[in-house]
Amino acid sequence: MDLKLVIAQLNFLVGDIEGNAQLIIDEARAQVGRADAIVFPELAITGYPPEDLLLRSHFIQRVELAVAQILSRVRGIHLVVGYPRRRDGRLYNVAGVWRDGEVLVEYEKHKLPNYSVFDEKRYFSPGREAVTFDLNGVRIGLTVCEDIWEVEPAAMSRAAGAQLLLNINASPFHIGKAPEREELVQSRARENNIPILYVNLVGGQDELVFDGGSFVVDAEGELAERLPFFTATSKIVDLSPGGNETSRITPLMSEEERVYRALVTGVRDYVRKNGFNGAIIGLSGGVDSALTLAIAVDALGADQVEVVMMPSRYTAEMSNQDAIAEAELLGVAYRSIPIEPAFNAFLEMLAEEFAGRPVDVTEENIQARCRGIILMAISNKKGRILLTTGNKSEMSVGYATLYGDMAGGFAPIKDVPKTLVYRLCRYRNSIAEVIPERVLERPPSAELAPDQKDSDSLPDYAVLDQILERYVEQDQSVTEIVAAGFEERTVLRVIGMVDRNEYKRRQAPPGIKITRRAYGRDRRYPLTWSKRRD
Amino acid sequence: MDLKLVIAQLNFLVGDIEGNAQLIIDEARAQVGRADAIVFPELAITGYPPEDLLLRSHFIQRVELAVAQILSRVRGIHLVVGYPRRRDGRLYNVAGVWRDGEVLVEYEKHKLPNYSVFDEKRYFSPGREAVTFDLNGVRIGLTVCEDIWEVEPAAMSRAAGAQLLLNINASPFHIGKAPEREELVQSRARENNIPILYVNLVGGQDELVFDGGSFVVDAEGELAERLPFFTATSKIVDLSPGGNETSRITPLMSEEERVYRALVTGVRDYVRKNGFNGAIIGLSGGVDSALTLAIAVDALGADQVEVVMMPSRYTAEMSNQDAIAEAELLGVAYRSIPIEPAFNAFLEMLAEEFAGRPVDVTEENIQARCRGIILMAISNKKGRILLTTGNKSEMSVGYATLYGDMAGGFAPIKDVPKTLVYRLCRYRNSIAEVIPERVLERPPSAELAPDQKDSDSLPDYAVLDQILERYVEQDQSVTEIVAAGFEERTVLRVIGMVDRNEYKRRQAPPGIKITRRAYGRDRRYPLTWSKRRD
Repeated sequence: MDLKLVIAQLNFLVGDIEGNAQLIIDEARAQVGRADAIVFPELAITGYPPEDLLLRSHFIQRVELAVAQILSRVRGIHLVVGYPRRRDGRLYNVAGVWRDGEVLVEYEKHKLPNYSVFDEKRYFSPGREAVTFDLNGVRIGLTVCEDIWEVEPAAMSRAAGAQLLLNINASPFHIGKAPEREELVQSRARENNIPILYVNLVGGQDELVFDGGSFVVDAEGELAERLPFFTATSKIVDLSPGGNETSRITPLMSEEERVYRALVTGVRDYVRKNGFNGAIIGLSGGVDSALTLAIAVDALGADQVEVVMMPSRYTAEMSNQDAIAEAELLGVAYRSIPIEPAFNAFLEMLAEEFAGRPVDVTEENIQARCRGIILMAISNKKGRILLTTGNKSEMSVGYATLYGDMAGGFAPIKDVPKTLVYRLCRYRNSIAEVIPERVLERPPSAELAPDQKDSDSLPDYAVLDQILERYVEQDQSVTEIVAAGFEERTVLRVIGMVDRNEYKRRQAPPGIKITRRAYGRDRRYPLTWSKRRD
Repeated sequence: MDLKLVIAQLNFLVGDIEGNAQLIIDEARAQVGRADAIVFPELAITGYPPEDLLLRSHFIQRVELAVAQILSRVRGIHLVVGYPRRRDGRLYNVAGVWRDGEVLVEYEKHKLPNYSVFDEKRYFSPGREAVTFDLNGVRIGLTVCEDIWEVEPAAMSRAAGAQLLLNINASPFHIGKAPEREELVQSRARENNIPILYVNLVGGQDELVFDGGSFVVDAEGELAERLPFFTATSKIVDLSPGGNETSRITPLMSEEERVYRALVTGVRDYVRKNGFNGAIIGLSGGVDSALTLAIAVDALGADQVEVVMMPSRYTAEMSNQDAIAEAELLGVAYRSIPIEPAFNAFLEMLAEEFAGRPVDVTEENIQARCRGIILMAISNKKGRILLTTGNKSEMSVGYATLYGDMAGGFAPIKDVPKTLVYRLCRYRNSIAEVIPERVLERPPSAELAPDQKDSDSLPDYAVLDQILERYVEQDQSVTEIVAAGFEERTVLRVIGMVDRNEYKRRQAPPGIKITRRAYGRDRRYPLTWSKRRD
């Protein structure tokens, strides 16, 4: 087939209809004369996911105006663009094909994901028809994202005569997703003996990171092209015989690198797209805040990040030293504000109220909340976003203080299990040492009580993380987890903590989904329910 | 028709499969010999909504065991029960009809709501068949909740010969809902010339309150029976000729009473079902905390509620007096903990950091957060839930401090617009004066800066609430709102505040939905988006 197509793997801002339209116009115009068509991701005009903005009638009107504007301003190239489209009082998620001011065809997405983080049946009606168009004598079929995960839409397109299939996507990252989607598309190509061009979105949007990595597979299911991950870029794909010999297949990265770059992308886009004047982090000398700092610096630059140490009577001198070393290794501004004056003030103010009652977790929470007040005050005063440093293991079992260390605008590693936190630190150190070795070797401690260690109240993280993955991500029952070799008492204790602490997670800041099932919209649990164990 | 049916308008706990099964067994056994059938609400066995618990395979197995247990333990009466049912690898939301250990029929819900707070397409597949059963020579059709809001399911049931239609529900409260659902069911009865028995759930579940008010309409669409609202109760409905003459139609309450009782129900069930040892409230002397206190006392009893006043340098003496008067009128324990020592400690700790920068909202937030720490400390120490006192108008425009006055486990009035707060106070005072008149007459103030008034930075609440309702609940555009007679500058300012403050609402505690569209799962907005005005 004599065909040159541009994969436009770009970063669109949700709701910025006019800005996204301009980006489409600029990219398309730049490719006129160089390619036959340019292919944009799913819902490119609105960004993905636009959520309940789609319920606003005027929002859809603005999309219609943007479509008209792009049509009027681009000539000489086919455009394949994703957008929401009203027809007969219903809304469809379409891939439109346009040329020289004319809408040639519009394909309405068949398969609407309504699981995990997706709510597409809340907004869209499903399409029923296969849609193809001809370009340079080649019949090209259309599908949108989820369509390619099922057998039917590609087969319908093939039956309608398609010789090449376009699949436009907004496919979010999680661990293992990139190879999974490639294998899936490869088998879909083989089933139908048809090449498939997979175009993905790139960039962070709230809790999701779209990882790019668009690719082409040939009719035998062989990978013919792969674009970079986590990078906004356009690339011409030459489908003529021998055309792809010049193409470079970007290699898949290690799992640690993929996760790390997803986190950097997520932080960068959340901070920039929301217009913050940089970020602030409370640095404890522990491994979680060390990793969060490294991610923030890689995302924003050292001059856009500042850290505060807030030692208390329970803070080891080693922790202060390590925190300073981390800040200096990364070149960020730091200072220390001890929390004792405020902590003491609260203890005195509450002395009468608490008279005769034993010291308990309340006093630990007060310390964490004093730190939260200091960090939020600096954040408010300077317009820098406060990044929280809690990991998924802690979020799971509630080993964090609401309005204390959970206070902040964004939680970069909230979906990263503690054992993976260590792996990511070592990955980052393999590029250049930014986290002192001692931080990775000391036993973890919240330092909220004398000689406290995480292992006093939690199982080893290696055990904890496996139980959590089975319970939270795989929906295994107690019986199943115990059968896999874990002690029943431990399993029951861990699951009990997970269930009891949903109320904390409900008030947690957003963070980046990197596992198969993150907390948040990906896992919708009631707060009130009988936590009887199954 | 010679038929006596029991409407079992009961309060089930989500996830308490074994407890709910026992409740069904007890209620059914109590009616043996008194009625021909007993009808329970939608998903009675799991409670509603069970959310992602439905994705757990073992959860569904437990439902199957519970069904078997109920079957084995109740004889001599038909049961109509709602539960999730696996068939051919798919899950259905069914109404099962059982008698003497046998499942007679199972109706699979046709219409799955996937809008507003509902996510039923996330879990269930739609049924396609009409299902009827015969009892005492009467053919009875089945529908589940949403089915009755569309034309088709009732018509299909009628076409299958149904002479009476049962509609089992889990229909949550919002303002205007009760008359709306009655009118709907009345017209459905008239369309099909069939009597309809509407059985609703009752009780609070996180952000939802199920208001009960089950009812019967005859084939002419006349209301023949209405059960009480907000009360768990069972009632025998005699459908024989003249049988309903003894029935009492519970009158509809005023809008204020319905909302107030919804709030009381929501607080009571959240606190009790989650096992808290009562509630604590920060009392400011303002109208919002006064109303929250009255609701809490009506929900839990005065001995289960305590209040704390936390004056600062900006607190008017009048505010302290009014707060004391409120506590004394309702008979709750109160004490005062001035925040000055902690506030001063933070100002000193941050003096160097903030040197040369003007005083701004940061210092106001520190005060609110000092109060949050005190209240949370008492909550932690005593196991009492902290109730926050913010209203919907404040939540909308971000006139609240994250981790400050927004700190707490439950936010009773977060969906109540300020103008309705006043109406509810007057309603409550009409029963017995619990809120001093002066509180209702003073201009509202956050008292976080000298001589501060809400009207310094917000439009009049009468105007604000109308703009908010149009924008948030009705999805109107700026153009539409301005066309309705509001000043464009004000509309743009209000909408800008709503959009910018989504991040605060995302971290807010849960609260009770009472309007057509609450914040939370009912309104799913991105945090990151181009807030360009439409």
